[in-house]
Amino acid sequence: MQNFTFDIPTVIHFGKGQIEKLGGEIAARAHRVLVLYGGGSVRRNGVYDAAIRQLQAHSIAWVDLPGVEPNPRIATAREGIRLCREEKLDGVLALGGGSVIDCAKCVAAGALYDGDPWDFSAKKAVPEQALPLFTVLTMAATGSEMDSIAVMSNPETCEKESFSAPCCYPAVSILDPTYTYSLPAFQTAAGTADIMSHTFENYFSPVETSYLADSLAEAILRACVRYGAQAVKTPDSYEARANLMWCASWAINGFLNMGKPVGWSVHRMEHELSAFYDVTHGVGLAILTPNWMRYVLSEGTEHRFARYGVEVWGLDRSLPQRELAEAAIEKTRAFFSSIGLPATLGELGIGPKHFEEMARKARTANFDRTFVPLSVEDIVNIYRLSL
Amino acid sequence: MQNFTFDIPTVIHFGKGQIEKLGGEIAARAHRVLVLYGGGSVRRNGVYDAAIRQLQAHSIAWVDLPGVEPNPRIATAREGIRLCREEKLDGVLALGGGSVIDCAKCVAAGALYDGDPWDFSAKKAVPEQALPLFTVLTMAATGSEMDSIAVMSNPETCEKESFSAPCCYPAVSILDPTYTYSLPAFQTAAGTADIMSHTFENYFSPVETSYLADSLAEAILRACVRYGAQAVKTPDSYEARANLMWCASWAINGFLNMGKPVGWSVHRMEHELSAFYDVTHGVGLAILTPNWMRYVLSEGTEHRFARYGVEVWGLDRSLPQRELAEAAIEKTRAFFSSIGLPATLGELGIGPKHFEEMARKARTANFDRTFVPLSVEDIVNIYRLSL
Repeated sequence: MQNFTFDIPTVIHFGKGQIEKLGGEIAARAHRVLVLYGGGSVRRNGVYDAAIRQLQAHSIAWVDLPGVEPNPRIATAREGIRLCREEKLDGVLALGGGSVIDCAKCVAAGALYDGDPWDFSAKKAVPEQALPLFTVLTMAATGSEMDSIAVMSNPETCEKESFSAPCCYPAVSILDPTYTYSLPAFQTAAGTADIMSHTFENYFSPVETSYLADSLAEAILRACVRYGAQAVKTPDSYEARANLMWCASWAINGFLNMGKPVGWSVHRMEHELSAFYDVTHGVGLAILTPNWMRYVLSEGTEHRFARYGVEVWGLDRSLPQRELAEAAIEKTRAFFSSIGLPATLGELGIGPKHFEEMARKARTANFDRTFVPLSVEDIVNIYRLSL
Repeated sequence: MQNFTFDIPTVIHFGKGQIEKLGGEIAARAHRVLVLYGGGSVRRNGVYDAAIRQLQAHSIAWVDLPGVEPNPRIATAREGIRLCREEKLDGVLALGGGSVIDCAKCVAAGALYDGDPWDFSAKKAVPEQALPLFTVLTMAATGSEMDSIAVMSNPETCEKESFSAPCCYPAVSILDPTYTYSLPAFQTAAGTADIMSHTFENYFSPVETSYLADSLAEAILRACVRYGAQAVKTPDSYEARANLMWCASWAINGFLNMGKPVGWSVHRMEHELSAFYDVTHGVGLAILTPNWMRYVLSEGTEHRFARYGVEVWGLDRSLPQRELAEAAIEKTRAFFSSIGLPATLGELGIGPKHFEEMARKARTANFDRTFVPLSVEDIVNIYRLSL
């Protein structure tokens, strides 16, 4: 097991009605907050009203910033930062899924940074301080509610880049599974694919000595298969929604890579899809993942995919390793299809036109320490396999 | 899944050489610390010297309190509190296993409490504030390095009682698996039994809807079986020591009971054994656990023990449920014997003399919300089964 540090400062209040704790938690840390949300679903499903009641009950002032995009744009963060400064706000409240929370992280850090917030994504600066961030989660997917990562998009340059810093952990996150009941089946499925992809990125590592990390990864994958399908079929199953929501947080809060070297592959490739075509993140991941698996399957990696097949898909461990590995990859592909996700880029109307450029951009990230190192050519090949 | 709050403020630096971070972490929070340790093994194995070098390098003053007992006594905590006050100390550093850390928690909270520290164990007071606590762990067992619980003993009254409060989480814990290499096989085995018992207490619950909690419990149990045996045989196996150490922290830091009702049984019964006979905690647990399992096995509970047998012991899930349950319990008993732990109270020279009194004292805790509610008579019966 490699050395690591565990340090998750986020307080999670999990369960039905936990929003009742929001006002007190904010009041202990801030007086005037920026309230970010997306296209308005939180106004229709009651989450916005419940949050505002909490602010009112604790005499916390607020300013709204609606309209945060599904792939949040840096311009929106700039607007949030302007509001924080003009209105002298000392906290940020995100109501929504990963996009809203990511944008809120950029605002919270950018408000205390003397420069343009795109500097964080461009790796010109690392946030050193941030306004306290509070989140009310409405979608189980990105895990942003319990990590320090934000992904922002810059449509002008076709860039989608992440940043991360200890000050960007939410102070408090409210995770109420009932808030995800109204999520359409397609979004639920895409969220499930995102959770599974985070888990795959952490799980497939050359090193296998971190037993708890690997076992929890397998448990999260099994849970996604079970409860993802259940939530798509039965949107108001509390058990399914609750387990999916808790999986989302733990797939990416750091536990799964503690003690092992991890380098992400599929997310980097997918980010270029989103940047070029504004693809739903989880859909891009569901399309690329089985093809990435197929591409990196070799004599050197097949034992890892075989283990995945046994532990996650319950395959018979007495079968030959290669057979297990191939069956596991096929199970993965079939599962994503079974919950209604597209299986090819063609279905999204995406052709090979930009593959070279996308691969070159993806390859600016470090692909040398990934499970299997990938060249620009390899990435193009995986895009092509996904057509 | 039931509602819960996740809030673990402890920072963990895990791995070989991580003590290099101790001085900086303390210096950020305290200037003068009380250094607690036990019988002197930390002076022989270099842990004490390494810690003191950290204090010196960061100009942190210190006062020693050696001699903390294996079942730490309230008198020792009182002495620590006296030193903190007299020497105007503003931090507490524990070098050792669970006993030293528990005593350090009592000192850290007691130093800021206007009353006798036994009040915490006697449930007359709950700690509201504590000096910042730092730990360097030398034994994988109690999990005290990452939880807010302390167990103190009062030999005058034959009492051993726990307390818990949010202020009692360590601020920073250094977990270096190499520090456990010198632990004797018997202590390693007892520690493994302790980790497994914490996991059992959380795992066996009437409710089975918290998938990640239950899956991580199963993973910890499998890891204890694999790495506990390995560490007993090969004391300097880094992989075994590291995995055991990380298991110890997660068996009791709260993750395993998030979302489910949990009521501990065996620990309460064992505490009386320790209080009356000063039994090594893990040994008492190893003796009582299989007998508790056998006693509470019924038509209503057998499916839980069957699942345990399949997931932890790899038993064939097509076997009849009762058969699986009984085999799993027998596997548990055989495992503890295989790592060199006694199987009966008789081996420790303990007879039935105090069973009634011990059971009455144990029963002052709430046994109504345990996996299977137990009366005084039930507890006596389990002690008798363990003779």
